[in-house]
Amino acid sequence: MRIHGRHYRTIFPAQDGEGVSIIDQTKLPFDFALERLATLEDAAVAIEVMKVRGAPLIGATAAYGLALAMMRDASDAALEAALARLARTRPTAVNLHWALARVAAVLRPLSPPERRIAAAWAEAGAICDEDVEQNRMIGVHGAKILGEIHARTGRTVNVLTHCNAGWLATVDWGTAISPIYQAHDAGVPVHVWVDETRPRNQGAALTAYELGAHGVPHTVIVDNAGGHLMQHGQVDICFVGSDRTTADGDVANKIGTYLKALAAKDNGVPFYVTLPVTTIDWALRDGVAEISIEERSAREVTHLVGETDDGRIETVRVVAPGSPAANPAFDVTPSRLVTGLITERGVCEASRAGLAGLYPEHARQAAE
Amino acid sequence: MRIHGRHYRTIFPAQDGEGVSIIDQTKLPFDFALERLATLEDAAVAIEVMKVRGAPLIGATAAYGLALAMMRDASDAALEAALARLARTRPTAVNLHWALARVAAVLRPLSPPERRIAAAWAEAGAICDEDVEQNRMIGVHGAKILGEIHARTGRTVNVLTHCNAGWLATVDWGTAISPIYQAHDAGVPVHVWVDETRPRNQGAALTAYELGAHGVPHTVIVDNAGGHLMQHGQVDICFVGSDRTTADGDVANKIGTYLKALAAKDNGVPFYVTLPVTTIDWALRDGVAEISIEERSAREVTHLVGETDDGRIETVRVVAPGSPAANPAFDVTPSRLVTGLITERGVCEASRAGLAGLYPEHARQAAE
Repeated sequence: MRIHGRHYRTIFPAQDGEGVSIIDQTKLPFDFALERLATLEDAAVAIEVMKVRGAPLIGATAAYGLALAMMRDASDAALEAALARLARTRPTAVNLHWALARVAAVLRPLSPPERRIAAAWAEAGAICDEDVEQNRMIGVHGAKILGEIHARTGRTVNVLTHCNAGWLATVDWGTAISPIYQAHDAGVPVHVWVDETRPRNQGAALTAYELGAHGVPHTVIVDNAGGHLMQHGQVDICFVGSDRTTADGDVANKIGTYLKALAAKDNGVPFYVTLPVTTIDWALRDGVAEISIEERSAREVTHLVGETDDGRIETVRVVAPGSPAANPAFDVTPSRLVTGLITERGVCEASRAGLAGLYPEHARQAAE
Repeated sequence: MRIHGRHYRTIFPAQDGEGVSIIDQTKLPFDFALERLATLEDAAVAIEVMKVRGAPLIGATAAYGLALAMMRDASDAALEAALARLARTRPTAVNLHWALARVAAVLRPLSPPERRIAAAWAEAGAICDEDVEQNRMIGVHGAKILGEIHARTGRTVNVLTHCNAGWLATVDWGTAISPIYQAHDAGVPVHVWVDETRPRNQGAALTAYELGAHGVPHTVIVDNAGGHLMQHGQVDICFVGSDRTTADGDVANKIGTYLKALAAKDNGVPFYVTLPVTTIDWALRDGVAEISIEERSAREVTHLVGETDDGRIETVRVVAPGSPAANPAFDVTPSRLVTGLITERGVCEASRAGLAGLYPEHARQAAE
């Protein structure tokens, strides 16, 4: 994607080959700042405090974190310690564990251990390149659906999205927003209802930022508003991302996704989940029962960061002093509420049969 | 309710008889400040900028606004101008129009016009007293339901509420929160999940404030979280208020209420709407089609007020600069999602038959 006229990925090796550059997403939308990760701990903390977020980007950052760890110490013990450190940064995102397992499988057999350094950099780079290509293909499949709606109605297609499943959540393109960029670029008139997405406001801050930077018409709404818009025919389709998808098609995504899926179902609005294969957890079936949901700090609910009219960044408390808060970060949308899953391979029903049709090799393996 | 050990109503005549005192709710939860309304315009602006809010309190404030207007000029022209000014402050709240019509019906026939002054004060006072008694009775009926849940489960009763339908939204007691206060005071263990309620955060700011002041255990959550909690059995019942209820039992309430009703239905959680008879609009049937929804300023979405760690009140922008926002203030929950309506007369089905059973005199009149 282009920011200030220059093409960026959200994560890329520094020119000196000794660090990794990220965009510090906690500073967006008010400040576009690159940050250098130099150590394993830098990478782990960047994931924990959500300087990087979004399932695919978390996976890519974890992979580079292993490369940074290997540069300091490529021993077996250091590798296992790095894997353990990174694995406990965010419990829900399946890509994190997928990326760590993938890089570990390459590094563990290498001898002497110093060979792990170059191999880790190469594998992290490959993970990033594959993510970009997967997201591009998700966009191709999803843009086709938007084009069909436009062809049928002759009107601007109103898409509702929740959280940030855009360019900033991945290495490039995004998942839920990739179809929107591609439809927009192809001349299909698109307008996006952007859910604010409390508590961290990734919609209001990040999705609105990247849609604005790309010139896609959009309007920010509070998370409460989507049902009302659907009742009044103002939403043609919903596109959301996924942090973890079960083999039966249940979807763990940012808290609140389930409520939008309920409203879409109640109003006959198609509700699509976009995901690269890496977010599918083939070992799980019932998402509500089996997916452990990360409980994050209450301060994310009680306090907010924003910019004053005179340009200062301030953190303010919005909850009554003394009142406690709870902060479950994700919820699970049962497959019965999902019109379809859009992956890099195409569109399928949100079901075991649907996913097995697109991924016969995974489904076979999971059944064994 | 008691604040700092003293009993308050949210609106009451000033001791000198020449003004009305309100609590400036835009300063809560950080500052508890009384404000004096001295003129019609003071009252109208207090409603518009939401120093007072909540359907019953808006009605009471409008009634006192007429009394303040009559003190300056009790002529027919002044009365009609005051009615028109107050009627256009908030389009959705039916109590506003009900209160204005009620006071107008008393004042219009009076001659000489100066008699209108005392009559307006008396009628506004009567409206307030009736509101307090209605809300107390709503609490009696609702607390019975909470007591039954506790008797059945033996556990703390977890209630989810949206927006502020508490003491601060009425003259005293509240509607949705009145049963909670009465159950709590009667020794039934109750815990309240308080929806933050974007965009104006009435839950995080006002409901949390008043529950805290009364000592009721509660936890603030973002509006996105309620569905997840219901999926996991952490909500026993929902209580919400109503800004306008149709004769068929559809409910216009703060934006986002509909999403919680959908989640309650999907998870078998009872969803009750509490309302005084004054919020029923007997002329309406289909709420989604017929109720005009107030679109408020985009700045309520893009900006937030809060308190910094060092005690300054700051307004910050949270939406990406340049991104527009939309702000529908209410949505409509269809009666099919409502377990029951709780009014001052008891509990009924959310339907024409249910309401007609409680209010035969209104139903007869509406049918004529």
